[in-house]
Amino acid sequence: MRLATLSNGSPDGALVVVSRDTQRCLPATGTMQQAVERWAEAEPALRALADRLERGEGNTLDHGRLLAPLPRAWQWLDGSAFPQHGELMQRAFHLPPIETDRPLMYQGLSDRFLPGHADVSLPSEADGIDFEGEFGVITDAVPMGTPASAALAHVKLVLLINDWSLRAIAPIEMKTGFGWVQAKPACSVAPFAVTPDALGEAWRDGRVHLSLQVTVNGEWFGHPHGREMQFGFHDLIAHAARTRDLVAGTIIGSGTVSNADYATVGSCCLSERRAIEMIAHGTPRTPFLHFGDHVRMEAAGGNFGVIDQKVVQA
Amino acid sequence: MRLATLSNGSPDGALVVVSRDTQRCLPATGTMQQAVERWAEAEPALRALADRLERGEGNTLDHGRLLAPLPRAWQWLDGSAFPQHGELMQRAFHLPPIETDRPLMYQGLSDRFLPGHADVSLPSEADGIDFEGEFGVITDAVPMGTPASAALAHVKLVLLINDWSLRAIAPIEMKTGFGWVQAKPACSVAPFAVTPDALGEAWRDGRVHLSLQVTVNGEWFGHPHGREMQFGFHDLIAHAARTRDLVAGTIIGSGTVSNADYATVGSCCLSERRAIEMIAHGTPRTPFLHFGDHVRMEAAGGNFGVIDQKVVQA
Repeated sequence: MRLATLSNGSPDGALVVVSRDTQRCLPATGTMQQAVERWAEAEPALRALADRLERGEGNTLDHGRLLAPLPRAWQWLDGSAFPQHGELMQRAFHLPPIETDRPLMYQGLSDRFLPGHADVSLPSEADGIDFEGEFGVITDAVPMGTPASAALAHVKLVLLINDWSLRAIAPIEMKTGFGWVQAKPACSVAPFAVTPDALGEAWRDGRVHLSLQVTVNGEWFGHPHGREMQFGFHDLIAHAARTRDLVAGTIIGSGTVSNADYATVGSCCLSERRAIEMIAHGTPRTPFLHFGDHVRMEAAGGNFGVIDQKVVQA
Repeated sequence: MRLATLSNGSPDGALVVVSRDTQRCLPATGTMQQAVERWAEAEPALRALADRLERGEGNTLDHGRLLAPLPRAWQWLDGSAFPQHGELMQRAFHLPPIETDRPLMYQGLSDRFLPGHADVSLPSEADGIDFEGEFGVITDAVPMGTPASAALAHVKLVLLINDWSLRAIAPIEMKTGFGWVQAKPACSVAPFAVTPDALGEAWRDGRVHLSLQVTVNGEWFGHPHGREMQFGFHDLIAHAARTRDLVAGTIIGSGTVSNADYATVGSCCLSERRAIEMIAHGTPRTPFLHFGDHVRMEAAGGNFGVIDQKVVQA
C-alpha cells in the first residue's frame, strides 16, 4: 500500500491512498500523522481504499499537489548506518575513526519536510550545498526500552529522503560534539510512503534492498544499494528508544546510502564523491552544487516516486 | 503577562492567562502553539485577560493541572552559552577546548516537555542521571537569515527549563560529533511562560538577569545567575536561523546556568559540581541522582513558578 499527502492549504495536508501505478488516488480520513497515531484502527480502512484502487476506482492523482508524506513530524532522527561512507570520509580527511560500536544518530529539523518537486531555497553556495540520498521509516509509538528484536513491528511506512547538507559548516559543527544545526536544513521526501509488505523481497533484515539512483543535472551520479547498512532500521529504532519513548510519526533515516563497490556504483552525495577524488588525486574535482542545479533521486522500481528538485537562492 | 497550559485531555492542553500572584487564571482561546503562531492577533486579547485578572477576576488556578507551557514543540534547540560551565568540564576531564567562536547548539527531543510537577521516568541509575537548570525562550516564526540585531523582537515568552541529562552516555555521544540522542531525554518546564516585559529589568541584553535556585532533596545546591551568558538569546536565535526558517513555537535554551563565582553560588547541574570536585580533589564526591531523589528549581522572584520533581524508574 502506498500513501501520500495532498496539499489542501493546511500544514498537514490531506491523506490519500495511491494506486500501484501511482496514477490514481482515493481520499482517506484525516492526515498521515493521525493515521500513524492510530494505525491499528486506520490500516483496514486504508487497505480497503487500496483494494478499490486496484479494481480501477479512484481519481487522477495530481502529482503537482503532492507534499512530503509527513509534511512535518515531531521527531526526525537520522542515522549514518552505511560504514563505507564513514570510512571514505575518514580516509579523505585523515580523521581518526569514530570510536563507537553503536549506531551513529543525530536529531534534525522536523518541523517541515519539503515536497519532492519543490525548489530548495538555501542562503549561500559558499556553504557547500550537497544532497544525501537515503531511506527512512515512519514508526508508530515505540515504548522506551523496545529491543531491536521487537522494533520492526513499529515500522509502518518506508520513505525515500534527500537530506540536504551544507558541507562548509558540517565539520565545524561536528567538531563541537553537539551535532549539526546550521549544516542540516530541511530534508526533502519522495511523495509515496510505502508499507513494508508492498516492498516484498526488497524489505528484509530491516533494510531496503533497492538501489537508489541519483542524477545531477541529468547525468548519472550513482546507484548504490540499500542492503549494506551496518545496522538495520530495527537497530536504529532500538538505539533511539533506549532512553525515550518515540512519538508516533517519528522518522528514522539510514544516512546516505554508500557501498563498498563505490568505484562502480557511485555515491549518493557529493561529499563522498569528493572524498573518493581526494583519496585518488589529492584534491576533489567535483564542485558542490550551484544555484540552478537539479538533483533527481528515485529508488529502483519506482516505489517511492521521484525527488527532482532545483536548488535556488533564498 | 504570564501564560500557562492546563491539561484538558488533548496533547496541547488549553491556554490560560495567569494572575501576577499565580493564584488565579482566565481561559484564553486555543493553545499556546496557536497563540505564538499568530501572536500579533492573539496578544491584545491575552493582555485584556491579564488586565481583568489584575482587577480581581478569574478562577482559582489548579496547580496540579498545569502542563509545560508548550507541552510539545516542533523544535527545541539548546545552546550552551555559559562559558564557565564548558571551562570547568574541560579542566576536569582534560578535554581540549572546543574550537569555535560560534554559539554551541544541538537539536533535542521536542515532542514532549514534562510538567514541572511530574515524576521523571528514566530507565537506569547507571546512566548517570543529572539535571541542568537553564532559561529558555519561545519564538514566533523567525525568517532564515534574521540577524541578532533583529532577533529579540521574536522572543515572545521566557521559560525556566530542567534539561534532564544522562552523563554516562553524554561523552560517548559527544565523541561521535553527532550530538546527543540517548543522553538527552525529555526536558521539564516550569509552568509559567512569561512575556519579556513582565520580567522588567530582569530581561535585558537578551539575557535573564535572575538567579536560578536549585535544591536537591531539600538541600541547597546552587543559585547561579543568568547574566553570564557569553551569547544572548538574540545571538542564539540568529545562529539557529542562519540556514533555516524557525517555525513559530521554537524553543531555544541557554544551556545550564553557570557562573565564574561557582565556589560561592554553586551550580545548576551535578556534572558541574562533580567537575569542580575533580579539579579540587582528583575525584568527584557527589553522586548522580538515585531513584526517589527530588530536584527543585525556581528563579528568584518566582516568575516562572516551580519545577519540583521526583526521579523514578521507568
